[in-house]
Amino acid sequence: MSEFNAKDHPHRRYNPLSGDWVLVSPHRAKRPWQGQIEEVSSEALPSYDSSCFLCPTNTRINGEVNPAYNKPYVFTNDFAALMQDTPDYRRSDDDLFVLKAERGTSRVICYSADHSKTMPELSVSEIADVVRCWIAQYRDLSQHYTWVQVFENKGAINGCSNPHPHGQIWAASSVPTLPAKADSAQRDYLAKHGKNLLLHYAGQELQSGERTVVENEHFLVVVPFWASWPFETLLLPKRHVVRMEQLTDSEQLALADILQQLTIRYDNLFQCSFPYSMGWHGAPYNGDSNEHWQLHAHFYPPLLRSASIKKFMVGYEMLSETQRDMTPEQAAERLRALSNQHYKQQQR
Amino acid sequence: MSEFNAKDHPHRRYNPLSGDWVLVSPHRAKRPWQGQIEEVSSEALPSYDSSCFLCPTNTRINGEVNPAYNKPYVFTNDFAALMQDTPDYRRSDDDLFVLKAERGTSRVICYSADHSKTMPELSVSEIADVVRCWIAQYRDLSQHYTWVQVFENKGAINGCSNPHPHGQIWAASSVPTLPAKADSAQRDYLAKHGKNLLLHYAGQELQSGERTVVENEHFLVVVPFWASWPFETLLLPKRHVVRMEQLTDSEQLALADILQQLTIRYDNLFQCSFPYSMGWHGAPYNGDSNEHWQLHAHFYPPLLRSASIKKFMVGYEMLSETQRDMTPEQAAERLRALSNQHYKQQQR
Ligand SMILES: O=P(O)(O)O[C@H]1O[C@H](CO)[C@@H](O)[C@H](O)[C@H]1O
Ligand SMILES: O=P(O)(O)O[C@H]1O[C@H](CO)[C@@H](O)[C@H](O)[C@H]1O
Repeated sequence: MSEFNAKDHPHRRYNPLSGDWVLVSPHRAKRPWQGQIEEVSSEALPSYDSSCFLCPTNTRINGEVNPAYNKPYVFTNDFAALMQDTPDYRRSDDDLFVLKAERGTSRVICYSADHSKTMPELSVSEIADVVRCWIAQYRDLSQHYTWVQVFENKGAINGCSNPHPHGQIWAASSVPTLPAKADSAQRDYLAKHGKNLLLHYAGQELQSGERTVVENEHFLVVVPFWASWPFETLLLPKRHVVRMEQLTDSEQLALADILQQLTIRYDNLFQCSFPYSMGWHGAPYNGDSNEHWQLHAHFYPPLLRSASIKKFMVGYEMLSETQRDMTPEQAAERLRALSNQHYKQQQR
Repeated sequence: MSEFNAKDHPHRRYNPLSGDWVLVSPHRAKRPWQGQIEEVSSEALPSYDSSCFLCPTNTRINGEVNPAYNKPYVFTNDFAALMQDTPDYRRSDDDLFVLKAERGTSRVICYSADHSKTMPELSVSEIADVVRCWIAQYRDLSQHYTWVQVFENKGAINGCSNPHPHGQIWAASSVPTLPAKADSAQRDYLAKHGKNLLLHYAGQELQSGERTVVENEHFLVVVPFWASWPFETLLLPKRHVVRMEQLTDSEQLALADILQQLTIRYDNLFQCSFPYSMGWHGAPYNGDSNEHWQLHAHFYPPLLRSASIKKFMVGYEMLSETQRDMTPEQAAERLRALSNQHYKQQQR
């Protein structure tokens, strides 16, 4: 029997934030693809689209008119999944029928007035405006809610219904399932090791470099050791930062820079507007000191082999455990090797 | 402030098998759909397709020839995610880089020789052949592996690369993430309440009927109180059954009957070949008595509003918590009201 080699042999890796394992099958990358092929739109979009609900001066579905904005613009979602005035309620018969009323709100954030652009095509200073807008939203919503989820769904393949560059902000009165797991994982790690989980992790990754995609003075992006999605990444500050509101001005700029660098590389990977869901996890607003927390962003992109072939998280993933083919190290190597100039610019 | 009403107000429900919560936003079902529309193929398939890797007598990608089978036929996946001879290995630096070699195998099970049929179009006796084949596979693989995952990915929209009626069986040397959670949840429930979690749950659902989709002498199908997917269902035996191998002959027939009834209703919902991932959870083969276990099947269908509009589990779902619009009770009501005669048969 040969010696174990993570590049060739199936193995499981443990995600210390979620407590889940992922099955890695590196030898399987060779299988031919016979599954669904997605449509890729390479149509150039106009800077203004009169039928878009998010473009400046247009009328939304509920009759409200968007202002002629030229900085990031935030409004309350016309079909919010959470409402601010839900009456209190709790039920828990037999521990089987457990139900709790939930209060919250849901907002849309337009990154730019320009309908045709996505984050990698914005300038660093335009992305810095988005970062400042996120911070203002955290300041505002944390006065009323325990959890504020900043996220973006990008790409039709990924459930995004409008190509106008935008994200969402959902606030909730309870800490949701996944951040609650990240909360206890970080708390337990600090208690056991006397170290901040993700700060310690970032240090190890900086030393090895094996899974690094890009870094700058204040931030690091890696394909995490336990990545589920083929090109999943984790964005981490290099110093201890509990929440985004703590970032200094120069760190905010560095964040805009690394967001641009990462998303440009993503677009360059398959020469397409690269779809993903991304979102921020910082400490909840629950009155704790939350020193065990480290701010971080997750990027979960669905693509696997090309602009039109995605990874399906079905079957074994839904019933047993997430499975990936290529190793995280291989994915990082591919992303790292890409140019930091956007392919559309290179073609000019 | 009005009184709380689960039909109108956002709330969270607790999944006692996984420990996760789901956010239910019943008021949101009214929002218009502007997202991706999937292609629906309504093309009639031939009973035999010479280019199909699963049809009898055809040659597979690795050169092997399928026999002229006329009962369920099982072979080892030509691109298995798990291998039988992976060398042992373990690493766990800092609790951050935790990796374990994994052994296993992966098989394909063709349900029928007929390329054009899916489970709802097979006769009860043909489905009973599939059930018997599953049981034989459990008997065989449990001699070597701790976990045997029987599942099916159905539909191109759901990552299935071949319409030939088939499922998969993956066996692994460790209990994967999700069944490991179901294992501890059932163990803890028995310890705390002195009752079998899912047997007790089935009893409650039989009494209320609110979430029942279909039942027969030995089995019950409900949209579980904590369903994540719009039309998710849970199939449960009415008596205590730890593993599928324990089913008597008449229970095996009743299982075939309820599988047919459920999948016919699914096809009738949007008058299409209804996509889903389904799979079985029974006690692991770990030497324990496993009295806390109850055999069950999960059906996770991606469709939301029509044959071409699916629920995207993205953004908030990936970062915070699963969210659904329609309540589980509303979904059950719709499925229950459907005919148990297949729509293709009705049209004749
Ligand atoms: O092996 P298949 O059916 O080609 O692959 C499909 O099912 C697997 C198991 O559920 C998934 O891991 C793959 O992402 C999916 O494409
Ligand atoms: O509100 P949207 O963007 O239309 O909806 C999209 O994002 C939501 C939050 O991630 C998901 O729950 C929906 O399934 C998805 O279609």
